[in-house]
Amino acid sequence: MPEVKYISVIGAGRCDEATARLAQETGRLIAGAGAVLVCGGMGGVMEAACRGAKSAGGTTVGILPSLDASGGNSWLDLRILSGIGHARNLAVAATGDTVIAIGGEFGTLSEIGLALKCGRTVIILAGWEISRDGEIPVGLLPASTPEEAVRLALKRLPAADS
Amino acid sequence: MPEVKYISVIGAGRCDEATARLAQETGRLIAGAGAVLVCGGMGGVMEAACRGAKSAGGTTVGILPSLDASGGNSWLDLRILSGIGHARNLAVAATGDTVIAIGGEFGTLSEIGLALKCGRTVIILAGWEISRDGEIPVGLLPASTPEEAVRLALKRLPAADS
Amino acid sequence: MPEVKYISVIGAGRCDEATARLAQETGRLIAGAGAVLVCGGMGGVMEAACRGAKSAGGTTVGILPSLDASGGNSWLDLRILSGIGHARNLAVAATGDTVIAIGGEFGTLSEIGLALKCGRTVIILAGWEISRDGEIPVGLLPASTPEEAVRLALKRLPAADS
Amino acid sequence: MPEVKYISVIGAGRCDEATARLAQETGRLIAGAGAVLVCGGMGGVMEAACRGAKSAGGTTVGILPSLDASGGNSWLDLRILSGIGHARNLAVAATGDTVIAIGGEFGTLSEIGLALKCGRTVIILAGWEISRDGEIPVGLLPASTPEEAVRLALKRLPAADS
Repeated sequence: MPEVKYISVIGAGRCDEATARLAQETGRLIAGAGAVLVCGGMGGVMEAACRGAKSAGGTTVGILPSLDASGGNSWLDLRILSGIGHARNLAVAATGDTVIAIGGEFGTLSEIGLALKCGRTVIILAGWEISRDGEIPVGLLPASTPEEAVRLALKRLPAADS
Repeated sequence: MPEVKYISVIGAGRCDEATARLAQETGRLIAGAGAVLVCGGMGGVMEAACRGAKSAGGTTVGILPSLDASGGNSWLDLRILSGIGHARNLAVAATGDTVIAIGGEFGTLSEIGLALKCGRTVIILAGWEISRDGEIPVGLLPASTPEEAVRLALKRLPAADS
Repeated sequence: MPEVKYISVIGAGRCDEATARLAQETGRLIAGAGAVLVCGGMGGVMEAACRGAKSAGGTTVGILPSLDASGGNSWLDLRILSGIGHARNLAVAATGDTVIAIGGEFGTLSEIGLALKCGRTVIILAGWEISRDGEIPVGLLPASTPEEAVRLALKRLPAADS
Repeated sequence: MPEVKYISVIGAGRCDEATARLAQETGRLIAGAGAVLVCGGMGGVMEAACRGAKSAGGTTVGILPSLDASGGNSWLDLRILSGIGHARNLAVAATGDTVIAIGGEFGTLSEIGLALKCGRTVIILAGWEISRDGEIPVGLLPASTPEEAVRLALKRLPAADS
């Protein structure tokens, strides 16, 4: 098989217009870079990112929490029916070689933690501010724009998979 | 998105030549019918089915139990890193609109049960003989050949998804 | 900690009177043997087994599929809120040193497969008839009465835990 | 059944002496309040909290990531073998009526997110500093001492379960 790169976009199932624009542009850039966009498959940030990726001819994968596809957004090339609820956040976080977080919701916070636990670099484009002992932990990178986020994500793709 | 049909092929990570031939032919026919082949992503039956699907230009998805891709077979278009071990059998079973079981291993037995629990029809091409009170439960269909298995699988795709 | 033995009782969330009597007696005997009864925490076979165990002063643990306790039966000493739906069947199957299956439902079939996959002996008191190539697989033992089922379960407790 | 209260203590599998002392004292106070201590069952913060709870005659439950009990600490009354790796963090977070976080590790961060997602109040005794738009989200409470943490945890036990 030709080598495929995966970038996970994590974010809430509902979001405001400004956040959706960030997500859509991020998705478009991921597709433009030839990487597969992985997400939780639902609305909000996930839907906007998928719509962006499809606008650039990319491939989108949604790992849904449910056993049926009814909650999935309309821009998924492939949907996985995990049936494990919020525990599917682990699969969303781990399937990406790198993870981009957009927006501040609790599920997103859990995915940031799970991704870091799995050794994935997490780029925060908007939302959570996380530190310990006053320092941002290694593995967590802030980004100011979708361009910067995707550039960092591509750079940080682990050697083992690239 | 154009409508996509999913068929899961479940079977052991190791198998003999005859079983691999069944799996490969099943994969080839699934791809020929334009359906996506979903599996656990590893060797044996899963690998043979994916090889068959790729020989016919199909799409293959592997839902791996691990957090890294090293155990995945070489014929996967997309791999999901679930990180939940045998519990990923639920996602393998549920993601298929229909499930084809090939060979008699314990993990396969669990996937048959999980698929039936999720309302998926399961076609048994080889392996387990399962009954209660002397009768095969509704939802479980024996097939004698890959052709019959795939024909039944396509027929049984639930109306909601077809 | 004093050494604790665990026996999982698997069975459907609804059952007829005769099956409930088998489950209740099985639970009573598990408690009488000083073992912890593990189950999926809901009604039917699970509830009857827990009621039996509590009638003999035993300890009962229910691993629920949900994120809230409302579906749990009234005889649980401890409830785990797994939040992973049917995938919690793996935890129910694996937490027992041995597993006793009562009744023929699809979830139970999946737990039989998962338990065997995890190396647990499964005793079938009622319900599923499972074979491959005409033979019952090693690890699966039929029992005719609750007494025989619990006797076999205690005998089969793996050396590592006893 | 008599009503049981559950408090989850989340923290890393390894920790320094000062953190272990915080965890042990927290466990002791949880047991003193008559609540069940739930944790991930392993070393470090989890072990120290369990040791504290047992010193006060409490009940301890460990939800292990593995399929065998070998990684469990010596102070568990009951161990659940979940077999789902880091995804068991959801069960650890959700099983508590309230959650107390001690120390700053990535798994702990994920459990904070999952607990908040499930509507549980999380009390941070030490470790992570988390905010969005410059504000600590509702549901997340800092505490300065084990006494304050357990007092808040008991106060925040949701009405539905108390």
